[in-house]
Amino acid sequence: MQTKDTWRVGIAGLGTVGAGLLNLLSDRPGFAPAGANTVVTGVSARSRSRPRPYDIGGLPWFDDPVALAASPDNDLFVELIGGSDGPAKAAVEAALRARKPVVTANKALIAEHGAELAALAEQMGVPLLFEAAVMGGTPAVKMLREAMVGDEVVAVAGILNGTCNYILTEMEASGRSFADVLAEAQRLGYAEADPTMDVGGFDAAHKISILAALAFGCAPTYAAAEVEGIERIELLDIRLAKDLGYRIKLVASAAKSAAGVSVSVHPALTPLEHPLARAGGALNALFIEGRTIGRIFIQGPGAGAGPTAAAVAADIADVMTGARRPVFQSPATGLKPFTPIDAKTAVGRAYVRLLVRDEPGVIAAISETLAEAGVSIDSFLQKPVEDAGGVPIVLTTHDAADQVLRGAIAAMAALPALIEPPRMIRIARI
Amino acid sequence: MQTKDTWRVGIAGLGTVGAGLLNLLSDRPGFAPAGANTVVTGVSARSRSRPRPYDIGGLPWFDDPVALAASPDNDLFVELIGGSDGPAKAAVEAALRARKPVVTANKALIAEHGAELAALAEQMGVPLLFEAAVMGGTPAVKMLREAMVGDEVVAVAGILNGTCNYILTEMEASGRSFADVLAEAQRLGYAEADPTMDVGGFDAAHKISILAALAFGCAPTYAAAEVEGIERIELLDIRLAKDLGYRIKLVASAAKSAAGVSVSVHPALTPLEHPLARAGGALNALFIEGRTIGRIFIQGPGAGAGPTAAAVAADIADVMTGARRPVFQSPATGLKPFTPIDAKTAVGRAYVRLLVRDEPGVIAAISETLAEAGVSIDSFLQKPVEDAGGVPIVLTTHDAADQVLRGAIAAMAALPALIEPPRMIRIARI
Repeated sequence: MQTKDTWRVGIAGLGTVGAGLLNLLSDRPGFAPAGANTVVTGVSARSRSRPRPYDIGGLPWFDDPVALAASPDNDLFVELIGGSDGPAKAAVEAALRARKPVVTANKALIAEHGAELAALAEQMGVPLLFEAAVMGGTPAVKMLREAMVGDEVVAVAGILNGTCNYILTEMEASGRSFADVLAEAQRLGYAEADPTMDVGGFDAAHKISILAALAFGCAPTYAAAEVEGIERIELLDIRLAKDLGYRIKLVASAAKSAAGVSVSVHPALTPLEHPLARAGGALNALFIEGRTIGRIFIQGPGAGAGPTAAAVAADIADVMTGARRPVFQSPATGLKPFTPIDAKTAVGRAYVRLLVRDEPGVIAAISETLAEAGVSIDSFLQKPVEDAGGVPIVLTTHDAADQVLRGAIAAMAALPALIEPPRMIRIARI
Repeated sequence: MQTKDTWRVGIAGLGTVGAGLLNLLSDRPGFAPAGANTVVTGVSARSRSRPRPYDIGGLPWFDDPVALAASPDNDLFVELIGGSDGPAKAAVEAALRARKPVVTANKALIAEHGAELAALAEQMGVPLLFEAAVMGGTPAVKMLREAMVGDEVVAVAGILNGTCNYILTEMEASGRSFADVLAEAQRLGYAEADPTMDVGGFDAAHKISILAALAFGCAPTYAAAEVEGIERIELLDIRLAKDLGYRIKLVASAAKSAAGVSVSVHPALTPLEHPLARAGGALNALFIEGRTIGRIFIQGPGAGAGPTAAAVAADIADVMTGARRPVFQSPATGLKPFTPIDAKTAVGRAYVRLLVRDEPGVIAAISETLAEAGVSIDSFLQKPVEDAGGVPIVLTTHDAADQVLRGAIAAMAALPALIEPPRMIRIARI
């Protein structure tokens, strides 16, 4: 790839990140350390006339992002449309086929079609960069792709969805329910009108799938991620977990062992003193564990127009260096989906909350049921809680295989003293 | 720079990091994602016959590191000799003049001669990389040089010397004096026989000088750093600070304002809940504050053969990508030393500990002296401490200019009730 004095940039997608990027490039067109300039030579979005907080009148307009991607008037294509398929994928493919470097913030696209797009990019000899797809302004992608290559990464775990983290933080701080805090977050614009991608854990699953691919040298394999969201987290559990010394977080994690790779997103109890428990509000945070280096922790803003646009800009600056490296950790033609570890065999500790009628023999029945199922108890807490509609009993288990734990839960659910099915939340292995 | 299938690596300096690197390259010669191989084609150290935990018999030996650096038998030179001048500098210059990429872990060299070496590297068209010079296996250099270029960095602050952090952590945990813990650290090999570079703050000053250059786009200007070590930290201060809600850390920081840049290393009180206060033992930790991105925090191992060798290896992998970017944040010919801000005008809060005779009127005299000097008190603590040889009085001030504060300290020192001169430790602005 040749060195240029000026890079002509086409930008498809003019939402908050696109606006942030236009501002950045118009304020500091020569921001890149290598000294080359940038000029925006084309934009595309769903609606040209939609009111925007900035003027796009002077910029060449394309109704079709694919036409923008293929246009000879730009040398570098930035995709900020979003979505794993449709115009985003078509435009990225068109740009790569035209041998243009592509920078994208699209986590769904990379998590679901990353290996295929990487193969196309490498065939065409151009970079495909996506720092802004994970943790917004916090450079998790660069750390795993570039900084850890001297080591073998064995696990990553973190908080990758700011909306969920904000909701859980607010529930604890204000004592309100999930539904109340979500509704407020939607009013304030912190959560989407359809919040499923965020609160259902799917956004975090896209991100951890990308990080797992970078960490372990495999193809992003979103379909193999185990995903559970925060919709069923109750205030009662947040309070009881805290009494036990934990905070509930939506933890995205990936780990490698001889048996394969596990990638999961689920609510988990994290020790109050742990850095992940202490990352509140909309912060994102990530642990990277290398066999030799040990644990590296990184924390920062996971979203927002400014930080995300700055991450896109850092990728543009990287393109300018002419660096040639595989999109993931090895040439894309050799990337394979990982072997998922059967979740049923995963071993871990759990928090179990039962709501029982206040009658004699309940605790004996519970502990016998657990013993018969082969699950041993680590701690046990019975605590009167006003308006709970019964007596909450909370216990934490020692390590047990997931299917053993689920057997125990099913057996307890059949106990006559139970007012509602047991609620199980895993304790994070961090 | 051409792409190669095999990179022939010359390594000068075979201490712990050199040993770690030899192990890494012999275990995984093809570790780099781009797929190229490495082969060690020459080594140099002070003594060939010194007993080592690994065999160097099969590797071509050079008595003179400069000859190794200039040898046509290698394409990439790794400098692990150490020291700001002498053979390390001569060898790096020889390698650059031979148009070889250079990777070094030498913080003193880069902090003191970085701009000059960068100019030579850029003139020759080869990279000069030094990730391992700061925070060992934790990629602070890459974050500032590459990941933050879409933003304007306004401040960095962190814990950059693991030996000091270990000593302060141990003093608090075990209730032993600085001298005792240092002696133990020396026995265990955690501290050098001559510990001045570490405990005097000079190692951290080298590192923060490099980070400041990367953060603010100036030449590393070690000579302008204000440096104070931890030798005078007493257990009494660690305990009293904790009573006030703080932990004493050796904080290295750099900040940019319209007036210029300040770079300093000094002991500082950090709030117990702050991530810097919570980074214990030999950990390193760093905050990077960008105008747009906000605060990014990174923490990890700051030293050790494995982590540091992994950082050197990541630089070797970066060389293989053929990336061309300035060594610092803009071409070296334009790098200027920064304008240092006069430390006397720096504004901040302070902790002041006085040891006084238990007699009437002491507190009145102290508070009058402070008021006359123009320093206002934020908190005040008088607490009997056994064996302190008097009554310790501790106060924290509101913001005051450094010279005003020093005036107040001098005035208090003259009070007849004082048993020893006041001890002042700044409160970190973090």
